[in-house]
Amino acid sequence: MNEPATVRGPYRNGIERRAEIIAKASEVFGTYGYVAGSLRQIATEVGITPAAITRHFDSKEDLLAEVIRAWTTKSSQALGPSATGLTHFERLIKLMEFNHAHRGFLELFLTLSTEASNPDHPARRFITERYEQTLTNFMSNLGLAVRSGAAKAMTPSEIEAESREVIAMMDGLEIQWLLNPEVDLLGLFASYIRRTLERWRAPALRSTP
Amino acid sequence: MNEPATVRGPYRNGIERRAEIIAKASEVFGTYGYVAGSLRQIATEVGITPAAITRHFDSKEDLLAEVIRAWTTKSSQALGPSATGLTHFERLIKLMEFNHAHRGFLELFLTLSTEASNPDHPARRFITERYEQTLTNFMSNLGLAVRSGAAKAMTPSEIEAESREVIAMMDGLEIQWLLNPEVDLLGLFASYIRRTLERWRAPALRSTP
Repeated sequence: MNEPATVRGPYRNGIERRAEIIAKASEVFGTYGYVAGSLRQIATEVGITPAAITRHFDSKEDLLAEVIRAWTTKSSQALGPSATGLTHFERLIKLMEFNHAHRGFLELFLTLSTEASNPDHPARRFITERYEQTLTNFMSNLGLAVRSGAAKAMTPSEIEAESREVIAMMDGLEIQWLLNPEVDLLGLFASYIRRTLERWRAPALRSTP
Repeated sequence: MNEPATVRGPYRNGIERRAEIIAKASEVFGTYGYVAGSLRQIATEVGITPAAITRHFDSKEDLLAEVIRAWTTKSSQALGPSATGLTHFERLIKLMEFNHAHRGFLELFLTLSTEASNPDHPARRFITERYEQTLTNFMSNLGLAVRSGAAKAMTPSEIEAESREVIAMMDGLEIQWLLNPEVDLLGLFASYIRRTLERWRAPALRSTP
């Protein structure tokens, strides 16, 4: 132990404790759902009191937001620089590899997505906003590809439909893999996205006629 | 009230009570999930004691099985005679119309599907078996279409991949619709399934070259 570490101890511990709570919350919410997963249980698993959690997070919803934020940051780091146009969709194969390596997050996110189908669910706004964000992102990248001539002509409503299909396929294949780890999630998704990109590409740019 | 009705009263009431418990269980499980949705709450909403539920159902899992069975029967009746080969997949548009008209069941089924991603979930076997059943059914119909020459040649693993994609697309689009009722679930799915059938069809039978 050197001097600076000792001096920065309490602060460092606060950050570590916070990270530990986020990690346990991710596990507990992913296993029991957000409604049934309690702060009490998260606290018990970390070895602190529920009141101690509220020193780090304003509310349960705030903790959930931090859990999702931590995973989003982690996946962005793992994926490297973001890509635009059709390359954005090729990059989803890498995102799926990240998801595949982080089963707990997928469990959490999909459990929340279906739980929040209940309009009174406390995280419903959070989840619907996240879906809207992903959709907007996909649509703007596909729209860019259409305008640049990399993709065939599509109407705005076709762009929305295509983007929704990609999101649906990701969620749906992930559910099957969570229920049966023998499902070849990565192979299935890569083959789907490559076929989709081929279909989207401007006819002159297609690899097959 | 005529004589027979009076005579059959207690029996008829038993059947009605049972149906009422199944309907409430479907709502409660769909809203809170299967783990958090309690027999106590179902009983309260029906206006009976939890013990009274156990006179009709052996266990919570038995009740869940009956809920799913009731819906499966109802959807089969709504869809009419089953279809084989590629027609099976065209008929999924009608199944989606049924699902769309029965939001509560979709909520229940999708909530369960993600909740059961936890290997210790009490309904995991039930849910994984249901997915396997659907997959087997899809694969055998697509296989039939390939063998009869209605669909292009596919290897068994291609048949499995294609079947898994259709299941994934149904689940994924349903999740988006549950989170946002403005999503055009029926239009999106019909356009996906028609495009997929066109891609599957034997080249000589395709409507477009």
